[in-house]
Amino acid sequence: MSDRDPTPHTHDYRVLQREEIATLLAQWPAVAARLGGQPAQWTVQDVADGNLNAVYLVEGPLDGLCVKQSLPYVRVAKDDWPLSVERAYFESAYMQRTEPFVPGLVPQFLHFDATLRVIVMERLQPHTILRKSLIEGVRHADAARAVADFAAASLFHTSDISTPFERKFQDVALFSQNHDLQRITVDLVFIDPYQVHARNRYASPQLAAVAQSLRDDAALKAAVATFRNHYLAKPQALLHGDLHSGSVMVTQTDTRVIDGEFAWVGPIGFDTGMFIANLLMAWYAKAGHSGDTTGYRAWILEQIAVFWQRFHAQFLAHWNTHGGRGDGYPDSHFDATALPTVQAAFLQDVWADTLGFTAIEIIRRTIGFSQIADFGAVADVDLRARQQAAAIALARDLLLHPARYEDVQALVSAVPAFGLH
Amino acid sequence: MSDRDPTPHTHDYRVLQREEIATLLAQWPAVAARLGGQPAQWTVQDVADGNLNAVYLVEGPLDGLCVKQSLPYVRVAKDDWPLSVERAYFESAYMQRTEPFVPGLVPQFLHFDATLRVIVMERLQPHTILRKSLIEGVRHADAARAVADFAAASLFHTSDISTPFERKFQDVALFSQNHDLQRITVDLVFIDPYQVHARNRYASPQLAAVAQSLRDDAALKAAVATFRNHYLAKPQALLHGDLHSGSVMVTQTDTRVIDGEFAWVGPIGFDTGMFIANLLMAWYAKAGHSGDTTGYRAWILEQIAVFWQRFHAQFLAHWNTHGGRGDGYPDSHFDATALPTVQAAFLQDVWADTLGFTAIEIIRRTIGFSQIADFGAVADVDLRARQQAAAIALARDLLLHPARYEDVQALVSAVPAFGLH
Repeated sequence: MSDRDPTPHTHDYRVLQREEIATLLAQWPAVAARLGGQPAQWTVQDVADGNLNAVYLVEGPLDGLCVKQSLPYVRVAKDDWPLSVERAYFESAYMQRTEPFVPGLVPQFLHFDATLRVIVMERLQPHTILRKSLIEGVRHADAARAVADFAAASLFHTSDISTPFERKFQDVALFSQNHDLQRITVDLVFIDPYQVHARNRYASPQLAAVAQSLRDDAALKAAVATFRNHYLAKPQALLHGDLHSGSVMVTQTDTRVIDGEFAWVGPIGFDTGMFIANLLMAWYAKAGHSGDTTGYRAWILEQIAVFWQRFHAQFLAHWNTHGGRGDGYPDSHFDATALPTVQAAFLQDVWADTLGFTAIEIIRRTIGFSQIADFGAVADVDLRARQQAAAIALARDLLLHPARYEDVQALVSAVPAFGLH
Repeated sequence: MSDRDPTPHTHDYRVLQREEIATLLAQWPAVAARLGGQPAQWTVQDVADGNLNAVYLVEGPLDGLCVKQSLPYVRVAKDDWPLSVERAYFESAYMQRTEPFVPGLVPQFLHFDATLRVIVMERLQPHTILRKSLIEGVRHADAARAVADFAAASLFHTSDISTPFERKFQDVALFSQNHDLQRITVDLVFIDPYQVHARNRYASPQLAAVAQSLRDDAALKAAVATFRNHYLAKPQALLHGDLHSGSVMVTQTDTRVIDGEFAWVGPIGFDTGMFIANLLMAWYAKAGHSGDTTGYRAWILEQIAVFWQRFHAQFLAHWNTHGGRGDGYPDSHFDATALPTVQAAFLQDVWADTLGFTAIEIIRRTIGFSQIADFGAVADVDLRARQQAAAIALARDLLLHPARYEDVQALVSAVPAFGLH
């Protein structure tokens, strides 16, 4: 990954057909050896369920693999929304950059083909997507802790706390070229929901007044601008950039974070806030159902506290073990007596960003283009709109009254007051 | 300047001798035509007075030119401090990127040779360095206003307010490779003065206790860490990166900003703070002299107010005319009623950064490696140390009690209380 300016071999790129996958993999000895046997023995299954990529699971006599290819358009929109296939390069760069810090919390990276934009990685089985388990009411007891460990390690080790700025700015120079996906984030997350835009997709008339109230609220848009500008101009660490419950695969004993194609050097709270927001929306999407979801919803709120507290503790643990070698807080300036004060201030700032990005993620997932299956699973459109309006009411309070939420306990305790009434 | 990853042709680089300059320039038709006549008619004068570069003034029958070559070491330290010659590439990139926004406030860029790291630019005559005029007590009435215009235009037009992030991140990707000079800034400005380091150069024993008190002050070092992390991770706009009074050339009717080799995408307040700090130090360096400097010193403080107020007004004027097209504060979110509130908040944040960087610049210029001629001109070492201690006392108050300095008038009014007693 020494090439910091990826050469666009776009003339040789083509969208692969399922029938070609085995022949392709057979070219790469390490990949072929991992599958074992002969290509004719390999089965290839198309399992894409995201918006942006083709995904295949390949099974051989010895092992299975996952093959992911960038498509030159947003999948749901096909040719209507063209998109550079370069993002596979950035996803592979992110995997290789972060895997040393988070072994066992991500699928193992195996191969990248720069022409076809194909990533080959470990196949996760029998994992399910965390979002699906939340919708189904399954408790994966270790998921929040594991995602916290992933976030703490990947963010800490790519920050100015642990890393001389020369190394960090290799990441900045590289990932700041990931324009296409950053443009999606800037527009869909930070801009569209606060203006009239054809891409926005909210229930109308149910949420029309709520959407209008967001567009009319200058103080809210000023708060959003603060966090949008942090996203654009606060490169604290290499972000996953899309750390929601759909980017986490779980079993009862294993948790892996996938899909780092939105990687970007930005504010740490963007990753943590997006994860918390998606847990909160899982909670809202269970409101008002006839079945008894009380216990499960309480468990979700607990997981939010587990996530933040574990992230906080692990980030500090990394700092105390590996800190001081970066330019942010050098050992020569802060001894063991002085360090806790600056650490607390740093993490309080991350918490403030976390709250802001939590709120913004909730708003964009309920008003904007990219809706989530949690709410999609609620068949009663009126009920769903009431859930979403309640979530937006919380988001608005987080943006306008952040001082009410000084820590994660304050957040978790306040959530029920913004439930359905 | 489309090549964002400069190819290091270092094998062909060599340090030029004065005798070679005319032959070199004769190769470049536009440059030769500007000088006029034949190379044999051109006179070449070595005028280097900085630390990092060779500088020649070339006079021909028609016009003169300035030729600047990066040297592969810090000039004062010769081979003891090797330094990449790449910085000429970044200086030329900065000149070409910013000149359209600040015509008439910078020397005209004419040519860059990527092999020899030679920049050819307009020769400024009969300009003098602003720092020299401040030392001599000359009033260049327009300098502060012009530098404010330069800062407002160059910073505004490279920020997320005016520019889609895709364009800004071309600057980020390019200038984040300017590692060598950024390392100098990080070490000399932000780290060395707060630890024992062989590079620090302060009068001892006169300032030994002051230097020790900086190293012992955990709250001060925590405040410095905040601004160091802003320098490292708050890319608001393309900075000049070294905007002190030695980077400004003046006549009574003309002001030009030179020496952009420290260019870097960072916090706007870094440029404004460095300029204010150097005006403040000019004020301190005139304290306790026998001659009557009262009037001149009052004029310096006025220039600080002129600088900030003009910067503030011009930044807003650019915003009102050219804003809304960037991703920071899009027109679709902020109408004319809502905009003043977010503008005020943005500029208040720039002011907070300005204060912090002002303080840090004062400390590094009195304790650290890179001392300034303003104090150097004070022959009485004890007097100089008292001036420097007074300036450091102000700097300390700016860092520890920023709320006392809510605007530039508060700063200017407070300065005399930190004078010599």
